[in-house]
Amino acid sequence: MAMIGILGGMGPLATVDFMDRVVRLTDASCDQEHLPMVVAHLPHTPDRSRSILAGDELPLPHLLAGIDLLNRNQVGLVVIPCNSSHHWYPQLRERSSAPILHIASTCVAALPHGTRRVAVLATRGALASRIYQDALAERDIQPVVPDEAEQVQVDTCIRSVKAGALEAAGEALQAVLASLAARNIGVAIMGCTEIPVALRQLRSAPLTMIDSTLELARATVAFAMERGWNKAQ
Amino acid sequence: MAMIGILGGMGPLATVDFMDRVVRLTDASCDQEHLPMVVAHLPHTPDRSRSILAGDELPLPHLLAGIDLLNRNQVGLVVIPCNSSHHWYPQLRERSSAPILHIASTCVAALPHGTRRVAVLATRGALASRIYQDALAERDIQPVVPDEAEQVQVDTCIRSVKAGALEAAGEALQAVLASLAARNIGVAIMGCTEIPVALRQLRSAPLTMIDSTLELARATVAFAMERGWNKAQ
Repeated sequence: MAMIGILGGMGPLATVDFMDRVVRLTDASCDQEHLPMVVAHLPHTPDRSRSILAGDELPLPHLLAGIDLLNRNQVGLVVIPCNSSHHWYPQLRERSSAPILHIASTCVAALPHGTRRVAVLATRGALASRIYQDALAERDIQPVVPDEAEQVQVDTCIRSVKAGALEAAGEALQAVLASLAARNIGVAIMGCTEIPVALRQLRSAPLTMIDSTLELARATVAFAMERGWNKAQ
Repeated sequence: MAMIGILGGMGPLATVDFMDRVVRLTDASCDQEHLPMVVAHLPHTPDRSRSILAGDELPLPHLLAGIDLLNRNQVGLVVIPCNSSHHWYPQLRERSSAPILHIASTCVAALPHGTRRVAVLATRGALASRIYQDALAERDIQPVVPDEAEQVQVDTCIRSVKAGALEAAGEALQAVLASLAARNIGVAIMGCTEIPVALRQLRSAPLTMIDSTLELARATVAFAMERGWNKAQ
């Protein structure tokens, strides 16, 4: 029986949020029509953003151990609900027998038709890694990186979710979005899986928000349903 | 590194809810202070309640396969956020190298001091299995099993959560609670992990609700924190 492999725990609430989306997006009327998964929830993995900025590879052995765990347990697909980890996507793809969906590709594919420029809300590491800038350039869409004052708020938002301080996370996100809207930016990618958790604190957003957790979950469910993994063998 | 092993997917939303509680109950200021887990999310496991009532063992090979998967991956504890599965607790405990917390024991231990009688909201299978009745008898607490009209609503509540129909689940639960309160019952055990998901649809409950998902999550976090599993090795 093929299962979905989730390399998670980065961060913990983001992984729970991702699993919640997968379950809710699955068209099922009883347990047995849902999709089987194996989750390697590894929060001890060193900080991905810090290592990208420092130019070290500290998270890589942890990420590879997670890939190995999932492959040892017969997963037919690997997904990683952590954007910054995709800095090491080439090495993880090389190691994994099962294919790995790329979170930035699924997210950029979901941008509204005709989008010309889009803000990228992500860790400083993911921005330095150019995961989103490169995926957007392939489609001739201009990435807008937050200015320093905005990025400080993005950092606060992400850190607060990881610490369970959702109210503080929501306030920081609201400040970023107001600033981006004042600069006439109409679309933002939530390119860090903590940010959608913070967004739920807000009543509404002043721009169109593209959610990397949701888009990865949609692609995951589509991949698994096409292959009939919802059907008990 | 020791990890928490979760035998889940029964049902899928209940497992996500359980993981969410574990993460939120963990005192952590960053990813690396959270608890590592392996999750075997196996929704294809045949209906536990139906098999208990029919007297067959169809779910057992699936449950044992999940126990084996978790133990192969070096978990130091197994928890099963599905009450009905505990019908096979003796066989699972026998097979598992890692200890398994018993959901009914953790739940009964959380009853308010001086509780004399308590309603047990659970699947018909879990009621037939007497998981809760036996745990309550040990403490001289009288179990109150719903009458047929109430149990029909309990069944609807559980089935609706598994199908993602949360509004219908909440309505059914509200009807059960109103009926129990009218019978002067003051405390109810939510002895099926779907029921707390439905409870979130209600503004308030007319009796004290003991939540098996929450109590298992509390016991899980306590077990893991005592052993320092939140600290990266």
